[in-house]
Amino acid sequence: MPETVFIKNLKDNVDKEVKIKGWMYNKRGSGKLFFLQLRDGTGIVQAIVSQNDVSSDTFQTADKLTMESSLELIGKVTKHPRHEDVFEIQTKEIKIIQIVNEEYPISKKEHGTSFLLDNRHLWLRSPTQRAIQVIRNTIINGIYEYLNKKGFIKIDSPILTPNACEGTTDLFELKYFEEGSAYLSQSGQLYLEAAIFSVGRCFDFGPVFRAEKSKTRRHLTEFWMMDAEAAFVEHDENLKIQEELIVSIVKKILKENKKELKTLERDIEPLKKIESPFLKKTHAEVVKELREMGSDIQENHDLGGDDETILTKKYDKPIFVEKYPAEVKAFYMKRDPENENLALCADLLAPEGYGEIIGGSEREDDYDKLSKRIKENKLPEGIFDWYLDLRKYGSVPHSGFGIGMERLTAWICGRKHIRETIPFPRTIKRLIP
Amino acid sequence: MPETVFIKNLKDNVDKEVKIKGWMYNKRGSGKLFFLQLRDGTGIVQAIVSQNDVSSDTFQTADKLTMESSLELIGKVTKHPRHEDVFEIQTKEIKIIQIVNEEYPISKKEHGTSFLLDNRHLWLRSPTQRAIQVIRNTIINGIYEYLNKKGFIKIDSPILTPNACEGTTDLFELKYFEEGSAYLSQSGQLYLEAAIFSVGRCFDFGPVFRAEKSKTRRHLTEFWMMDAEAAFVEHDENLKIQEELIVSIVKKILKENKKELKTLERDIEPLKKIESPFLKKTHAEVVKELREMGSDIQENHDLGGDDETILTKKYDKPIFVEKYPAEVKAFYMKRDPENENLALCADLLAPEGYGEIIGGSEREDDYDKLSKRIKENKLPEGIFDWYLDLRKYGSVPHSGFGIGMERLTAWICGRKHIRETIPFPRTIKRLIP
Repeated sequence: MPETVFIKNLKDNVDKEVKIKGWMYNKRGSGKLFFLQLRDGTGIVQAIVSQNDVSSDTFQTADKLTMESSLELIGKVTKHPRHEDVFEIQTKEIKIIQIVNEEYPISKKEHGTSFLLDNRHLWLRSPTQRAIQVIRNTIINGIYEYLNKKGFIKIDSPILTPNACEGTTDLFELKYFEEGSAYLSQSGQLYLEAAIFSVGRCFDFGPVFRAEKSKTRRHLTEFWMMDAEAAFVEHDENLKIQEELIVSIVKKILKENKKELKTLERDIEPLKKIESPFLKKTHAEVVKELREMGSDIQENHDLGGDDETILTKKYDKPIFVEKYPAEVKAFYMKRDPENENLALCADLLAPEGYGEIIGGSEREDDYDKLSKRIKENKLPEGIFDWYLDLRKYGSVPHSGFGIGMERLTAWICGRKHIRETIPFPRTIKRLIP
Repeated sequence: MPETVFIKNLKDNVDKEVKIKGWMYNKRGSGKLFFLQLRDGTGIVQAIVSQNDVSSDTFQTADKLTMESSLELIGKVTKHPRHEDVFEIQTKEIKIIQIVNEEYPISKKEHGTSFLLDNRHLWLRSPTQRAIQVIRNTIINGIYEYLNKKGFIKIDSPILTPNACEGTTDLFELKYFEEGSAYLSQSGQLYLEAAIFSVGRCFDFGPVFRAEKSKTRRHLTEFWMMDAEAAFVEHDENLKIQEELIVSIVKKILKENKKELKTLERDIEPLKKIESPFLKKTHAEVVKELREMGSDIQENHDLGGDDETILTKKYDKPIFVEKYPAEVKAFYMKRDPENENLALCADLLAPEGYGEIIGGSEREDDYDKLSKRIKENKLPEGIFDWYLDLRKYGSVPHSGFGIGMERLTAWICGRKHIRETIPFPRTIKRLIP
């Protein structure tokens, strides 16, 4: 019995007889010859079934095969007569695992988004959706690799929390035994700030939640964040770490996911331009530039989604927008020593109209200043006592940032809607499947 | 200005002048000589401050330093005169970042658990707690490395779900806009089963939740699970993957975390015995063995915590307990073809009294059988339609398993309570910090 081989490993098995286990994706031909497209999760291969080379049982089986039917196929691996790096199977035998009798709901024709999302458990099988998940996986591995190399330790921050990182609006609330309400975390940052005093540098990677009623293509109620935090790292070094991380991820994708980028019809020229140094502009500079481009953005306002779009379409490199007005940013950000009204922060905007993929800042490390800001922001008293303790017992300068996994994946994959980048998207109207 | 160096890298800087940024962990000496223990998150080093070698300012600074004060220290790296692989700093200059004036709450004396958990944000700094997190990080990396090598793709399964994997009891419930209730996931398994039809093999790693009122040392309300799922993998191969994974993790820990294991006073001899093959016993065999050892376990019962303890103290290898009575296991498990009353499942029990660290099974792949079980278990109708679809469109044999990250970490670290193995534990009485 020949060995079972993954389709991605066929190149190492030329002229050998192998077994493929997978699903039928497509079929052409009739009469004396069938061309089956098989997929097994690692790739797609064409298997040629010639009436002259197989038993009549196997030929009839090939005839019967319907889309998404599961099967085992035995045959010899050959090089494609013309295309470099393409392999085929000369079929000897086919064994059906399950024949699909009902018509598979997702055909080649165009379906509406709502239908596809209702059938997300099946839609995931399509080559584009598979490619997005494979690229997402490479991004995750790229983050781990870079952060490990730089001495960051994974610290899994909690989801059930009594407080909110950036205020208490838009939180999912639940009853927590006799302790009153718990809220689902919007960010693990505050917890990572505690952990840097233990391990120096750390990161988390997990789901976060926003009960926002936004329905834009950039919003999900549940999404994945990677937060990183480092002791003794100040604003400029914080940006340098982010820049190196993004450059290393894009290089890894270009190297490891050529096929998936092609499946997605992603133009890779813009990705090839992602090199150090990124652009760096202050919020004030960006406001001026945007107003010249026709935006009505005010000097003391955050950038809107449309502002990010027009700005990032103008340049072919990611842009750090730094030093936002402190009033539009979170209470824990350190102020610019040169201007108390500005936060020592930066958002990283991805090019091609994608906008924010990272938000970060140096953190306020002075007990009195932080305590005053908590009061000014009318945050619940007592609940941040532990967070203030970090400024009491050996406070140090420190900085961090958070990457929105779906926004980063959408940009790298060149997809418009972030709902395609997470396996099972959750929006205000969608909890199933 | 000398370069800032992590303590873990001092070995590469012998005879060089370096800068260390960190916290004072301990101090001995007086008069003309101080021995400072400094920690920076990557290790601990002794810095010697001799009155003859430093300015009077620096010597007075050393005198003033209190526990957990943050500082920068410049000095020359030397080898310890007697101990191999130990390095010291001959101090030239000290700059205080923040002197701790209040007494640090966690002193060297014994504290009660409740006090330590109230101060978890500070307790994390202690060498034992740091060591546990560093080992947890190595375990996480070990899981990623092994699964990547075996072709598993990370698929982030959702937390907000309309249904429960193993019934609807003990779930955290929350209001989800106009869609009714959502529940926090207990396992991503069902979603991974959908994803294998896209990527073949996949895994998730994220928080899961149980609103159980259990107060044992083995329970948390929020904990981390790694679920893996693979198409075309049947029961025996499923166990082989788990065995290889555990062996590779333990080898990695023994190689990379010698210092941390020593800090924890972990006896590493039992870990060195973790080699293939593991023991494999059926549930029926284990019940017989336990009854001979004095347990009152019944033939059709699950193993209790005490049963797992006495059984796993008897052997020095992990034990697969397979083929439990189907009635005590989840509805989605495939039945043993040789005995319809048994599930084609196995729990992996860690030695030294630790008990279950993995639960897994082959999954039912037949539409009619699965549909019948959903009805028998009185699970809500309709909600599993998408899950049943997976048995309608190209069903394949498949298996998977879930690792409880905290139980695995507790065993490897040799800790009794799993609450120490997660950065910020959540129990029925604890939501802060």
